[in-house]
Amino acid sequence: MEKDFIFGIHPVMEALEAGKTFDKVFVQNGLLGDNIRILKLKLGKAGIPIKYVPVEKLNRLTRKNHQGVCAFLSPIQFFTIEDVIPQLFEEGKMPFILILDHLTDVRNFGAVCRTAEITGVDAIVIPEEGAAPINSDSIKTSAGAIFNLKICKEKSLIKVLDFLKLSGIKVVCATEKTDKLIYEEELPLPLAVIVGNEEKGISRDLLKNADVKLKLPILGKTDSLNVSVACGAFLYEVVRQNLKSIQ
Amino acid sequence: MEKDFIFGIHPVMEALEAGKTFDKVFVQNGLLGDNIRILKLKLGKAGIPIKYVPVEKLNRLTRKNHQGVCAFLSPIQFFTIEDVIPQLFEEGKMPFILILDHLTDVRNFGAVCRTAEITGVDAIVIPEEGAAPINSDSIKTSAGAIFNLKICKEKSLIKVLDFLKLSGIKVVCATEKTDKLIYEEELPLPLAVIVGNEEKGISRDLLKNADVKLKLPILGKTDSLNVSVACGAFLYEVVRQNLKSIQ
Repeated sequence: MEKDFIFGIHPVMEALEAGKTFDKVFVQNGLLGDNIRILKLKLGKAGIPIKYVPVEKLNRLTRKNHQGVCAFLSPIQFFTIEDVIPQLFEEGKMPFILILDHLTDVRNFGAVCRTAEITGVDAIVIPEEGAAPINSDSIKTSAGAIFNLKICKEKSLIKVLDFLKLSGIKVVCATEKTDKLIYEEELPLPLAVIVGNEEKGISRDLLKNADVKLKLPILGKTDSLNVSVACGAFLYEVVRQNLKSIQ
Repeated sequence: MEKDFIFGIHPVMEALEAGKTFDKVFVQNGLLGDNIRILKLKLGKAGIPIKYVPVEKLNRLTRKNHQGVCAFLSPIQFFTIEDVIPQLFEEGKMPFILILDHLTDVRNFGAVCRTAEITGVDAIVIPEEGAAPINSDSIKTSAGAIFNLKICKEKSLIKVLDFLKLSGIKVVCATEKTDKLIYEEELPLPLAVIVGNEEKGISRDLLKNADVKLKLPILGKTDSLNVSVACGAFLYEVVRQNLKSIQ
């Protein structure tokens, strides 16, 4: 699935106009011309990242006339948090949002999506760059849950956090860098939970700007939980606390 | 690590006497003689499973003189539940036991061990046959937690369940085959939690003989959680309920 791509300036433009979503678009270094300028504008508007690559990289992908452009189709349609939140409120739902701060392992991402869908998470927010790809592996590990979730791909997670707070949504970090246990905090919906990168955890800016940092108790000698297990225990504590209102 | 094995009747006998633990021993079909008879008796006493194989299988493992015997070394020392439980009570601990009813995926097994060690589980019970092997993959996925856990390899999980109940330990099944949510049950230690096979869940006999069957709420369209995530959410609910007594 990762290899579903479209070549050539016009085919990519047409697919874009037909509403197709791309994960990213490769554009040959130094490519000039009116058509490519228009395409780049349209991609920018649609929030699709452009990566500039040497022509050899494109030649390795295909022997056909690629005209310096190769676009990778996304198997899913992305949403924006600015559209999702008001829509949820309009439907009378209390939003339950999961933010993945640069989770990079494909299997972890799939497992987290599976748990999120099952625990009633409405939308998952991922950064535009540096996140695990949505491909056949992550779809398989998610047991198909990726198709039943709204996934928002956002340029700036800090801006997402600001938007959530302005919308009256409490933002909590699942992190070990705190003394406060998750069980010591009241977690009524609407709520957003941030989970961090496998190695580095949650980035400093997000930690600083969130409403509260919470951790799971660590009772053994092993120093950290697998991120999808920790995420599951976190989301289920939210479910437990909100069970009467969400059932 | 899975390929750490010893060949020949005498070397295997000596390793056994030196206290080495084996995962299993391959013995050539129809092998006769006093030495092999004695070895088989000793293996039986030590609870090490013997698998009878054609000579070709042994020939494929080594070109050396295997004398019809190949023993696979276990990277860990196994315990028995009959020793572990009284010892825990003597130490003034309330046992927290996890029973894995034929969990077969190596990565799931490792992830479950990691979570179990972190949530303060004292011992994990696995069946003698049909469980995920303890090898370099499971050790890696467990982040080394396998070395800090007591692992009991038992012939009959039903007998383990009987023993636990006789010892005054409540046995709960983590299963979808129930209407009762985990949050509706009091789960003070001492406690044993049973988690089932990835496909078939917990076997009928164990489901019937356990004290109570409990499930996690499933709020989405995806029908089941990953077993290591479900196990983590279960174990953390036990931790939450027992936090005052175990910290």
